Amino acid sequence: MANQSGQSERKLGTVALRWHGHSLELLDQRLLPTEEHWITAEGATAVAQCIRDMVVRGAPAIGISAAYGVALAARHAGGGDWKAEILQAIRVLAESRPTAVNLFWALQRMERVFHECHSLEEATKRLAAEAEHIHEEDVDANLAMADHALELINPESAISVLTHCNTGALATGGYGTALGVIRRLHERGRLKEVFADETRPWLQGSRLTAWELSRDGIPVTLNADGAAAAILARGEVSWIVVGADRITANGDVANKIGTYNLAVLARHHKVGFMVVAPSSTIDMSLSSGKDIPIEERNGNEVREIRGIPLAPDGVKVFNPVFDVTPASLIDAIVTEKGVVKNPNITGMQALFG
Amino acid sequence: MANQSGQSERKLGTVALRWHGHSLELLDQRLLPTEEHWITAEGATAVAQCIRDMVVRGAPAIGISAAYGVALAARHAGGGDWKAEILQAIRVLAESRPTAVNLFWALQRMERVFHECHSLEEATKRLAAEAEHIHEEDVDANLAMADHALELINPESAISVLTHCNTGALATGGYGTALGVIRRLHERGRLKEVFADETRPWLQGSRLTAWELSRDGIPVTLNADGAAAAILARGEVSWIVVGADRITANGDVANKIGTYNLAVLARHHKVGFMVVAPSSTIDMSLSSGKDIPIEERNGNEVREIRGIPLAPDGVKVFNPVFDVTPASLIDAIVTEKGVVKNPNITGMQALFG
Repeated sequence: MANQSGQSERKLGTVALRWHGHSLELLDQRLLPTEEHWITAEGATAVAQCIRDMVVRGAPAIGISAAYGVALAARHAGGGDWKAEILQAIRVLAESRPTAVNLFWALQRMERVFHECHSLEEATKRLAAEAEHIHEEDVDANLAMADHALELINPESAISVLTHCNTGALATGGYGTALGVIRRLHERGRLKEVFADETRPWLQGSRLTAWELSRDGIPVTLNADGAAAAILARGEVSWIVVGADRITANGDVANKIGTYNLAVLARHHKVGFMVVAPSSTIDMSLSSGKDIPIEERNGNEVREIRGIPLAPDGVKVFNPVFDVTPASLIDAIVTEKGVVKNPNITGMQALFG
Repeated sequence: MANQSGQSERKLGTVALRWHGHSLELLDQRLLPTEEHWITAEGATAVAQCIRDMVVRGAPAIGISAAYGVALAARHAGGGDWKAEILQAIRVLAESRPTAVNLFWALQRMERVFHECHSLEEATKRLAAEAEHIHEEDVDANLAMADHALELINPESAISVLTHCNTGALATGGYGTALGVIRRLHERGRLKEVFADETRPWLQGSRLTAWELSRDGIPVTLNADGAAAAILARGEVSWIVVGADRITANGDVANKIGTYNLAVLARHHKVGFMVVAPSSTIDMSLSSGKDIPIEERNGNEVREIRGIPLAPDGVKVFNPVFDVTPASLIDAIVTEKGVVKNPNITGMQALFG
């Protein structure tokens, strides 16, 4: 793996997962930034549980983890009907989370390879190799997206950007999507400051993005989500750069709750709004964002933090994990295959049809 | 006091302060909703400390508390130069927080009465009476504002509203400003649901508004601040109703950080945006929101909750307590003196000039 040498690891940022062939180690992102604890998943069910419980999160990292989960299912299959066992593992993994399409994309790739295999031995070998390819390709995609994105950004002066959630090495195979663009700006001396929305309720911004950027020496300022408009009004931010969990055929984007707020604010303040995601995030089978299933999680994510109540016991909570930003508010969707400016169905089909 | 009988208390909501003549009791709002603890302030310095530390918060409640602080200074003065002691107390109270103008307005009223007094005995009596008037007038203003506001809202069907921060009985002398409007809608059977932004970083929405509304049987759904746009996109909310900490001569409004976000979102979704505040919040001496001093508080409010770290130690934080919503995004400013629709300098001067 490209990100297993110390040298490359530094360049790609902190890793979220480590593949050992017989097991998958996942950095428990629920405990960051206070604790760096790794969980070892030895089978597909354990990987599915880690995805469901958000030990690992971020659309690309979920897809990669699920792929390794299938590889583990093959490795541990046997005794009975190995084909049924692997198909059952794929089903369990597919049910772990509903919104990010990278999960289903990765599982489909794995299932395709599975159907070509004639023995468990072949399946074990080829499914592991396919998962590793998915992982490597994700890193390559991130590096390519950073190149494409920088062509959209005025090179004449260093800029400040605002980002939401975590789209970094922790959310991907390495380097990051939106955070990869930010890394690249920093590497080129073109970055002034990153404003990181703390991203309630799960606090991916404060717990993960601020941690990841601080570790990598990239200048970051944390802010409450509600401060974004005040920051944009100061005129210091040139681009808002975010990731995606699913992008539909018309260019609508499902991403972490609060993204749509930022898109409206960006348009109002004439600030650029860029979505950075690998092509595995594109779902051309859905015509618009209205068709994307939006996960709602337990209200306790809003009601409490680490068991400390922040709200009256049992108060009703609306806790959608994602929102949908209409294509009309997006200036560019950046993928490793290229860029769709001012996305609409024509532009999307030209690149992904 | 209107809000000291049990009957009226229920009608006006939970009280935030209790005046005993010789001391002021303040409900410690830092500990809600887990603990209801009252702090007794026996002098002006203690009141100033409670305002600075946000034991008591909310622009009108801060003004009322400061007025009682001056009354306490008179009561406990003596020994030396009583006039100097009272003036010094006013100075200390004026330095407790910078943004909400109700504080300075209340202190100016108290100082005017003070200058009319010829003896400490007279000052003790008249300053206590003046503070009680300020308190009573605030409740009356809230009730009047609710009347005015309801005239703006289509009476034909019950509506849902979204609110930010806490503007209820806890933020005022009783009943509330924006939350007073919501109470009145509920009393009239015209309220479907209140969506309450949790209001990071201080969580006034989850800790105070959800608590206050739940106690009073008003239907409330809590949401992360980032979910507001998704809620508006569903088309269920008719009005966003918020309070204010300072309103300038052109109708610009300083209010809790995140308010300006909501105003931009309201305009984008064609949802009404209403600011409800007593005339003590109006500062005609400032020509626009650019002139309002915006308090920034310690970054630990974002970095941690009750001592639990949420972000890397010492990470840079931008933590403004308020933002400024330009008048052009506001549909109506509602005060006890009347309503300014589509506020601008002409409309503001007609009512407050």
